[in-house]
Amino acid sequence: MSHEGLLDDLQTALARRDEDAIQEACARLNPVDIADFLCEQEAIGQGDLAVRLILSMSVTRRAEIFGRLSEPAQRSLASQLPPETLAELVAAMPHDERADLFNVLDESARHDVLKRLAHTEREDLRHLASYKEGTAGAIMTSDYASLPASITVAEAIGVLRNTAPDKETIYQCYVVNGNHYLLGTLSLRDLILAPASSSIDDLMVRDMVTATVDTSQEAVTRKIARYDLLALPITDDGGRLVGIVTYDDAMDVAEAEATEDIHKSATVGKLRRPIGQAGLGVLYRSRISWLVMLVFANILTGAGITHFEETIAAHLSLLFFMPLLIASAGNAGAQASTLMVRGMATGEVVGRDWLRLLGKEILVAGALGITMAVAVMVIGVARTGFDIAMVVAMTMVIVVLMGSLVGLTLPFILDKLDIDPATSSVPLITTVADVGGVVVYFSIATAVLGL
Amino acid sequence: MSHEGLLDDLQTALARRDEDAIQEACARLNPVDIADFLCEQEAIGQGDLAVRLILSMSVTRRAEIFGRLSEPAQRSLASQLPPETLAELVAAMPHDERADLFNVLDESARHDVLKRLAHTEREDLRHLASYKEGTAGAIMTSDYASLPASITVAEAIGVLRNTAPDKETIYQCYVVNGNHYLLGTLSLRDLILAPASSSIDDLMVRDMVTATVDTSQEAVTRKIARYDLLALPITDDGGRLVGIVTYDDAMDVAEAEATEDIHKSATVGKLRRPIGQAGLGVLYRSRISWLVMLVFANILTGAGITHFEETIAAHLSLLFFMPLLIASAGNAGAQASTLMVRGMATGEVVGRDWLRLLGKEILVAGALGITMAVAVMVIGVARTGFDIAMVVAMTMVIVVLMGSLVGLTLPFILDKLDIDPATSSVPLITTVADVGGVVVYFSIATAVLGL
Repeated sequence: MSHEGLLDDLQTALARRDEDAIQEACARLNPVDIADFLCEQEAIGQGDLAVRLILSMSVTRRAEIFGRLSEPAQRSLASQLPPETLAELVAAMPHDERADLFNVLDESARHDVLKRLAHTEREDLRHLASYKEGTAGAIMTSDYASLPASITVAEAIGVLRNTAPDKETIYQCYVVNGNHYLLGTLSLRDLILAPASSSIDDLMVRDMVTATVDTSQEAVTRKIARYDLLALPITDDGGRLVGIVTYDDAMDVAEAEATEDIHKSATVGKLRRPIGQAGLGVLYRSRISWLVMLVFANILTGAGITHFEETIAAHLSLLFFMPLLIASAGNAGAQASTLMVRGMATGEVVGRDWLRLLGKEILVAGALGITMAVAVMVIGVARTGFDIAMVVAMTMVIVVLMGSLVGLTLPFILDKLDIDPATSSVPLITTVADVGGVVVYFSIATAVLGL
Repeated sequence: MSHEGLLDDLQTALARRDEDAIQEACARLNPVDIADFLCEQEAIGQGDLAVRLILSMSVTRRAEIFGRLSEPAQRSLASQLPPETLAELVAAMPHDERADLFNVLDESARHDVLKRLAHTEREDLRHLASYKEGTAGAIMTSDYASLPASITVAEAIGVLRNTAPDKETIYQCYVVNGNHYLLGTLSLRDLILAPASSSIDDLMVRDMVTATVDTSQEAVTRKIARYDLLALPITDDGGRLVGIVTYDDAMDVAEAEATEDIHKSATVGKLRRPIGQAGLGVLYRSRISWLVMLVFANILTGAGITHFEETIAAHLSLLFFMPLLIASAGNAGAQASTLMVRGMATGEVVGRDWLRLLGKEILVAGALGITMAVAVMVIGVARTGFDIAMVVAMTMVIVVLMGSLVGLTLPFILDKLDIDPATSSVPLITTVADVGGVVVYFSIATAVLGL
């Protein structure tokens, strides 16, 4: 049966309070699909039904599912669970997910959970929950597999076999000394292939890719993707291993980062829920501030036009070409800016590339501008005669160059100012290009055609 | 030493033709960094140096690196290798990467390679290389670990130990019957935890996530990310296992897809090389067609303005607010369109959500429009008096609603027409909003203010 079919069964079973059928559907569904179902129920105000489903599961199953819920769903559903059940759930969750959940809880729920946990669990949770959002520390997990360097392959496989159920992954192992200083890494594949009596010390890889707890999540994700890692070891400043970030968490970060960058490119603020589940107020707030700011920025364009009112009154046909010229500047700028912002996000373009890319952009934008000038010249001559057509063509080359250079340069300037270059959004570039386009167009027109 | 330091050493060693130093630097560098170095050398016209470096490596090392080169670098460097070396290289590469390389080679090089391969290798290569670009078949690999259902855990571990060096991953195993029909999956972790005498048949997971060779790469990537898979099994239409797609290839696909979507959002066409390495001609071609198309589209806006020339001549101060109104329509539209396009790309929004989202968007855009109308009303009264301010405020509400609804709807229409919704780019939405904005603004102005 497809998972849609199973979800329908689950819904029916819940409505009928048929515990056996609930168990049966839950057992066959993937935890990911159950988590999605719970989020939907919570979003449409059926939180009590979601809580009933959670309580009917085993602790293990519950722990698998809870970390996959959206933050608002976690907060809402956790507040409806009895304190003992919540503490039991937290204890059973993977270390990174329970730290995230902990950060979502309110003060009194945190207190309830902490006092019910064993001492080492409590310390581990406090520690993981203390890292700043956006850093490697905040997404790493402390349930990794570590090995001493002095044992043999056979002994190491024994260690892994005994500890496997508690570890996020055993496919990549980390070799540490008595002070937990990271010495090397070893894959389970290499362990299985090696003779049973070889020593870990001889076998481990010493040239490793690592990051520290303060490394940004984007940089961690880029390393995992670039070097095809299953997990990236995270050390403190002293080189001691404190956690790992696994590839699946990196994929989630990469998707969230891409979404945030894409939203920023259209001046949409950060959304914590998927668009389908986000409330009206959240959507309004994520969009209004930039829109109002751009209204005020566009007054400059209006003022530019008003400044040239006499020229316009004398040659009203100039208005025909105005939208086309300022849109072209904005469009070319949007292209250049988007290419740069994405290049910087993927790490392909860095600050010192600016001059080289500027040279390239002048040539490309020049060629684009000339092509577009030719296209517009044809229309211009047919419609308004040679004089205005010449003004329009000259303006086109200049504004396309100008828009492109602004689009190319703004992301670098923002990056230097420690502002995310993705803030150099298409609407912002378009607004800048509008002002410049109007001034250039009517200045040339005034000079060539007179008043 | 950092990898930049090692790369400098390598460069010096190559210039001096010091084979020992070349070997030493190569051994310590990550294959990914060597591949990047080779791509750069090729891009700056130092292909002979790159070829020299490749020839000085062992076949294994060469095979590790070659699949990570960009397509143009692969094509150029492969054409400079002796035919026997190229065939030897192809034979040593992972199955998916060699199929990609094969597709990059010219006809005669393909022929040279094929005649030097063993029969089964040749068939496998032909088979993998025959799948359509963009499908699961084109990115899957045939070197997966498979097990019969009838053996025990101890026997299975023996099988994996013997075949591990040839397999892309042994952490996820696939249980097949005599006809290679996929029966279930089994992780190495579960194998290692299970008693040695249990049977694979009892242990394997039968409820699996799978895809077929025709599934799109985006859908494959979404499944791997959603269900946190190490690899996704790919079957033919008959349910026979023919390959797997691993998480690291899925991460590459996801990044390439995100880049393509982001570029499309600013009307930039597909680039096969990173922006820093792309040539002038490629960059020009990726940008010119949409720019010229939008020039012609913007003529409509110009025609709109010209149509209302009399109204404008009578009330020149209307021009002051024109940029602001049409930009606001475009900006609100850009936000709505970007939210929808990204939601569709991540699978969060599907076609049947349109009506529900439309209702939400009308409320949100209405609130946005009213807020912006209030902001602009204040400026309007101060600058031009109550009448024009009223016209401007009314226009603002209408054009923001209009822009938002166009931005929301266009992606759904394009999707229905089987065009990538990402084509609903910000510049396109802006252009549509410009035309509509001009017509609405001057129509209201003509009605309220007269001629």
